[in-house]
Amino acid sequence: MRRVAIVGTGHTKFMFNSPKSGVELLAEASMDAINGSGLKPKDIQAIYCGNVLGDFSEGQGMIQSYLADDIGCFNVPASRFEGACASATMAIRDAYTWVASGFYDIVLVGGTEKATAMGTPLATRTFAMFSDGRYEYPSGITFPAVFAMLAHLYSKRYNIPLEKLKETLALVSVQSHEYGVKNPNAQFQKEITTEQVLRGFMVSSPLQLLDCCPFSDGAAALVVASEDVAKKLTDKPIYITGVGQASSGKLSAQYKYLPRLRAREVSVKQAYDMSGLKPEDIDVCELHDCFSIASLIAAESLGFAEFGKAGELWEKGETRIGGKIPINVSGGLKSKGHPIGATGASQAYEIVRQLRGELVDQGRQVEGAKVGLVDTLGGDGVIVSLILSAD
Amino acid sequence: MRRVAIVGTGHTKFMFNSPKSGVELLAEASMDAINGSGLKPKDIQAIYCGNVLGDFSEGQGMIQSYLADDIGCFNVPASRFEGACASATMAIRDAYTWVASGFYDIVLVGGTEKATAMGTPLATRTFAMFSDGRYEYPSGITFPAVFAMLAHLYSKRYNIPLEKLKETLALVSVQSHEYGVKNPNAQFQKEITTEQVLRGFMVSSPLQLLDCCPFSDGAAALVVASEDVAKKLTDKPIYITGVGQASSGKLSAQYKYLPRLRAREVSVKQAYDMSGLKPEDIDVCELHDCFSIASLIAAESLGFAEFGKAGELWEKGETRIGGKIPINVSGGLKSKGHPIGATGASQAYEIVRQLRGELVDQGRQVEGAKVGLVDTLGGDGVIVSLILSAD
Repeated sequence: MRRVAIVGTGHTKFMFNSPKSGVELLAEASMDAINGSGLKPKDIQAIYCGNVLGDFSEGQGMIQSYLADDIGCFNVPASRFEGACASATMAIRDAYTWVASGFYDIVLVGGTEKATAMGTPLATRTFAMFSDGRYEYPSGITFPAVFAMLAHLYSKRYNIPLEKLKETLALVSVQSHEYGVKNPNAQFQKEITTEQVLRGFMVSSPLQLLDCCPFSDGAAALVVASEDVAKKLTDKPIYITGVGQASSGKLSAQYKYLPRLRAREVSVKQAYDMSGLKPEDIDVCELHDCFSIASLIAAESLGFAEFGKAGELWEKGETRIGGKIPINVSGGLKSKGHPIGATGASQAYEIVRQLRGELVDQGRQVEGAKVGLVDTLGGDGVIVSLILSAD
Repeated sequence: MRRVAIVGTGHTKFMFNSPKSGVELLAEASMDAINGSGLKPKDIQAIYCGNVLGDFSEGQGMIQSYLADDIGCFNVPASRFEGACASATMAIRDAYTWVASGFYDIVLVGGTEKATAMGTPLATRTFAMFSDGRYEYPSGITFPAVFAMLAHLYSKRYNIPLEKLKETLALVSVQSHEYGVKNPNAQFQKEITTEQVLRGFMVSSPLQLLDCCPFSDGAAALVVASEDVAKKLTDKPIYITGVGQASSGKLSAQYKYLPRLRAREVSVKQAYDMSGLKPEDIDVCELHDCFSIASLIAAESLGFAEFGKAGELWEKGETRIGGKIPINVSGGLKSKGHPIGATGASQAYEIVRQLRGELVDQGRQVEGAKVGLVDTLGGDGVIVSLILSAD
């Protein structure tokens, strides 16, 4: 298997009610990635695309085929992946294998979503299709409820009083907004305080409004190439050195293991083993913070803290730039936004820019970062993990 | 790249209003494929799954994750592909690469669909999401209209009077029903006459009811393995010797080329080149006959007839068992049924069984068949081609 690198990146502004279609958003991000790689659309040999709700939000399925034609990648193979919020990371992992195996030299991968067009109540119901629709959704379980239950379980299992946990969780959101302000692509451009989080209206106890990421529209894209080609295109290729993916079934099938997600532990182990790296080797991480509690749960399974102890990372500032493991210094899903089919590509975009040292001007560069980790959670149990390295 | 083989197959009955869920249908087909391969669920290293409408028809996205858990393939990577009606063939092509590259030795691939639960009028509108939803669907274009326009174009371009063309198209449907009767999995189990086709009610001129495939529920699955593993599991491995995929954009972007689909010609060339085979080497073919006219258009681009001449194949019986190129002797989409996300896997299932010589008892075995071709069309422009060989 050949080494594979990311050579170009593109990212739209994440926002509420974008005037652009899902195809247009991804076309914008894709052309930025292609042009930024010094390539032309005709150089792209295949397209891998994450999209979850195009059918529901715009009446447009098979979005990748229209994208390919619109940007001038005529008649290339173009595939859509759906693994809920992990769709685009799934597409990246797949693109990795097609290039690593020697089948293609240069491919485009990205994700796009219009998640706000349908309005918030319908969006919550629609998102719930990516939990178990047979037994669990009919019981009234939407994702705020899933993560609220995980927060209660977390509190109980690790013996952390709920009020104390809520204060820690507030710190997660506060940090995300602080960095979101520095990210021009972020949906939210204002700082918030712990007090604002704790005074917010209750969404699903104990999670309040500012514990929850927003619905968003947006897209992100990457050009992926074989090492040989990458070295000709850029002096800063960012290698994909580890990939992992695993799935769980419905939440009720996981009850003994929760609030830990076994799929995450399986997936990230694959990525660590493949890259020969350990959690302490990671310089910067983008993890799936759809709700504040999700950050703590993820940080532990990724190996950055003992189980039940991740809150201390945020309390001590270890997740900030300059800390032990900077996490979501893009603003994360919470502040940058969460256009679900695009999120994995956006996370990888952020890590690539960090490893290329391109975020100094934005005041959120992790100095000397060489290795980054991407963690995406789809629904209640699909995990994709990527390890990216500057060399 | 290693050689890759299909070692086991599973297929549910295709039907209207199945009482089973999409996950249950695919679980049934998958377990048949796994058991038939002499394997256990724990032997499956990854799952690749086609599904198009799970969200709409059952409120269930990310169907692959629940399947994996339900059949005991715990925590494996499971990906869903959406390329409209070509979703499952897209999944097979992807599974091929993951095994050929040495990443996995044994994977499960399949597709499932519940396309009838929503009722016919909504189904037609829902299917139309897989044509261009921005400009074309708002003009009133559903798929019957797309293929009706292609029939008119075909008539005009090749100077075949419409009434004559309709008689030829009727033969396509008549043959499909004749073989469908012999296929226990087929949705329709009755023969029809040319007169019945021509007397049917008009759906979209010139296409009448019996020119159109039905909406269907069903699933199909295959176990795919590396050559080494395959030889240990079966004395009849069926090798995937050629794969191809290509996409077009919206129909209006293809206007100069229609009724030919450039994507099909690009895709099947990839498969022929990769396998080193030509159209005349194909012993049996399953092609995408969503409408009778689609069969003629496909047969020409696949190389079985000159452009404008495919009708003669059906008129002369060359598409029958014993003819030059037996086509859709499963009953095809027309009579076997068309559960869209499952269709590609069903086509591959049929070819595998032909190449293994397993259809003698059903009275539709193509004697001595060694090489087969699968052609699937998704929406108005995604094509996946597979060439399967008995050695």
